[in-house]
Amino acid sequence: MKKTLNVAIAGLGVVGSGVYEILIEEIDLINKRSRQNIKLIGVASRSKKDFVDRKKVKYFDNILDLVDAQEVDVIVETIGGEDVAYELCKQALKNGKHFVTANKAMIANHGMELADLASRNNVSLCFEAAVAGSIPILKSLKEGLVANKISKIYGILNGTCNYILSKMEEDNLDFKVALKQAQDLGYAEADPAFDIENTDSAHKLAILASIAKNSEVDFKALHIEGITKISINDIRFAGEFGYKIKSLGIFEDISENEIRQSVYPALIKKGEKLATVGDSYNAILSYGNNCKWNFQVGRGAGSRPTASAVVADIVDIANGSNPFPFGCDVKDLKIVKTIGLQEREGAYYLRFNIQKSFAQNKEFLNKIFSDISIIEQSIIKEIDADNFIYALKLAKIKETQVNEILANIDNLGQITDVNLIRIEDFNK
Amino acid sequence: MKKTLNVAIAGLGVVGSGVYEILIEEIDLINKRSRQNIKLIGVASRSKKDFVDRKKVKYFDNILDLVDAQEVDVIVETIGGEDVAYELCKQALKNGKHFVTANKAMIANHGMELADLASRNNVSLCFEAAVAGSIPILKSLKEGLVANKISKIYGILNGTCNYILSKMEEDNLDFKVALKQAQDLGYAEADPAFDIENTDSAHKLAILASIAKNSEVDFKALHIEGITKISINDIRFAGEFGYKIKSLGIFEDISENEIRQSVYPALIKKGEKLATVGDSYNAILSYGNNCKWNFQVGRGAGSRPTASAVVADIVDIANGSNPFPFGCDVKDLKIVKTIGLQEREGAYYLRFNIQKSFAQNKEFLNKIFSDISIIEQSIIKEIDADNFIYALKLAKIKETQVNEILANIDNLGQITDVNLIRIEDFNK
Repeated sequence: MKKTLNVAIAGLGVVGSGVYEILIEEIDLINKRSRQNIKLIGVASRSKKDFVDRKKVKYFDNILDLVDAQEVDVIVETIGGEDVAYELCKQALKNGKHFVTANKAMIANHGMELADLASRNNVSLCFEAAVAGSIPILKSLKEGLVANKISKIYGILNGTCNYILSKMEEDNLDFKVALKQAQDLGYAEADPAFDIENTDSAHKLAILASIAKNSEVDFKALHIEGITKISINDIRFAGEFGYKIKSLGIFEDISENEIRQSVYPALIKKGEKLATVGDSYNAILSYGNNCKWNFQVGRGAGSRPTASAVVADIVDIANGSNPFPFGCDVKDLKIVKTIGLQEREGAYYLRFNIQKSFAQNKEFLNKIFSDISIIEQSIIKEIDADNFIYALKLAKIKETQVNEILANIDNLGQITDVNLIRIEDFNK
Repeated sequence: MKKTLNVAIAGLGVVGSGVYEILIEEIDLINKRSRQNIKLIGVASRSKKDFVDRKKVKYFDNILDLVDAQEVDVIVETIGGEDVAYELCKQALKNGKHFVTANKAMIANHGMELADLASRNNVSLCFEAAVAGSIPILKSLKEGLVANKISKIYGILNGTCNYILSKMEEDNLDFKVALKQAQDLGYAEADPAFDIENTDSAHKLAILASIAKNSEVDFKALHIEGITKISINDIRFAGEFGYKIKSLGIFEDISENEIRQSVYPALIKKGEKLATVGDSYNAILSYGNNCKWNFQVGRGAGSRPTASAVVADIVDIANGSNPFPFGCDVKDLKIVKTIGLQEREGAYYLRFNIQKSFAQNKEFLNKIFSDISIIEQSIIKEIDADNFIYALKLAKIKETQVNEILANIDNLGQITDVNLIRIEDFNK
């Protein structure tokens, strides 16, 4: 006789409703695949939804009451944010309830404390849905690729950014127009800053980095650049150089106690697998010493895709599967140093405007570059009667050198609208 | 205090040696990530390897002695074939030992019986390494995507086939030359039939289909075509039509009790994700009703990549994770009917040779095609003084119609070297 695992959902927004629907509509299939019968017994949300009445599901109008409900074994948190959700999570774990969440901000900022609480209370803390929606990337890294030192991760982790950059390229749109389209389609929030400034991707990358390195999440150490500085000109010039622009979360294992973790837009060669990932898809390319390259693509957001990951976590709990939240016991997680990008060595794309009169003899290039042979390719176009726009592809150099170049440009006082974008080479 | 899980490896070939190396060299990392300490305590192989003596690992010269060794908790089988391996597996499960294998032939042919034995004896039967090497696709389907009805799977499941077809295209090689290169690189066996006739891919697809549908493995029902009939001309013409040729394993959920499962070379559009998977990589594209498209790429063979999957299974056992081998209890697995390809509706590529004298007025096309408007594109080339080669891209039609066309060609008696290849459209 199968045991029953009772589940309650806190928060019935986009993701919570998806979880609700799956647990009602597809419960037979799910229970066939599970070693315990999963039963949705309660929901809590700010306002009671119509659909709740139609099923035998108890409604809690105070979300925090869930942690005291004896009958609840698993709490699913799909509220978001770090206020109620964080309080709920701490109390739930302390009360011996398994906790499943899609909340990347909470996990990136409080993951260590919460994993420790879960461990002390011998319950599961699961957050597959927090990173890359329906792609089972945390499971892949922690379980499927457990026998690997993961040395590199490159992720397209935000569907909104990917949609905007892909649309700009495909339809030759300005950033603002593509953003507006994303908002009209519901891909971007009214206040899109969280997505387009890459805070969202940074939360996800911090979690991935921690799992890859078995180190404490160190979100504050991340280098974060948004995609707002990418112009349609950059996308066109990158295309002419043979590249696409993607917003990437990047983890690199540098040494025993050092990592690099950053989120920024980057040029990647058109032939690369990550370059083929368009629309609002997410993707993660990782390298492990034994498995070699692993690449996964899927929907990174949306109601059902994200709910698919939440329900998978519930089934894991029902099946007794309980890997460590961050890949190893929280007390074994290392504290590592995040190395800044000044140590980076790589290729760069540089774009700027310059007055024709000043650019005439190209002598200015010698004032910017101590060695102009690092310019591998260049595109010069007239933008109006008085100005040129320059796009340069620079050879592999140190980021400190790039910073000198930017300082020279600044000193020159004749160059405007400067944009520098890193070029990522996966040396596959 | 952590418990210890004792492991023995049966078979020290390519994969077994990889498992041995990982369990010796990287055991600290693995045990940090595991809730039990994993310990390699024994190996069995036909001949004692040099390296065994150097470590405190017991050598068994009779492989079947492993099943009686009290101290062994998990047996890893990397012998291959269905003789000793199958006997070992049955005895091990009966003796209450967990069993981890990379043996796709054994699982495709005896999986139901073995899963039943595992269930009765309350032990794990794991075979992640049997399908697509280091890609954790079984884990993804059974666990990560558990909340989905999987309706479609398209897999590049054999690295040798993919290497050969990719090399033919890249370097403009004949099939035989590319095969020889694959053999020289160790990608193909001296007798390559198992790979190039697609028996290997079929074993893997049968396992994937069973897990996707929660149905009994029905390997014998699979439609299997090898890649030996693909010529360099086909690759060139496909390229001119905008396609690549890949060897695909295809699962389709047709109805409650019907599936389609087949392995054959197919034309896929150059822009498709699967078309970007070259070299000896494997890839799986699947569609679930909630997660939507999921795509995974990785090494499908080789010592360490395959061993990476084997070790992951051992860690799962150590962590108490025990999902059902085929996605649900073996007694709940459905018996489904495999629908033949005669019901298929899709586009086709047709290539043949014809004498110039006969082909002059193209009247012969009316004898072959009841409606020549189904020819969407055609390439006609002179191959010598007397003969043309035709390549036709046909519109979406029923496979029964295609069979009529082939019969008409046969009746005509003037056409030689006929090759028909299906075109797969993922309608993404």
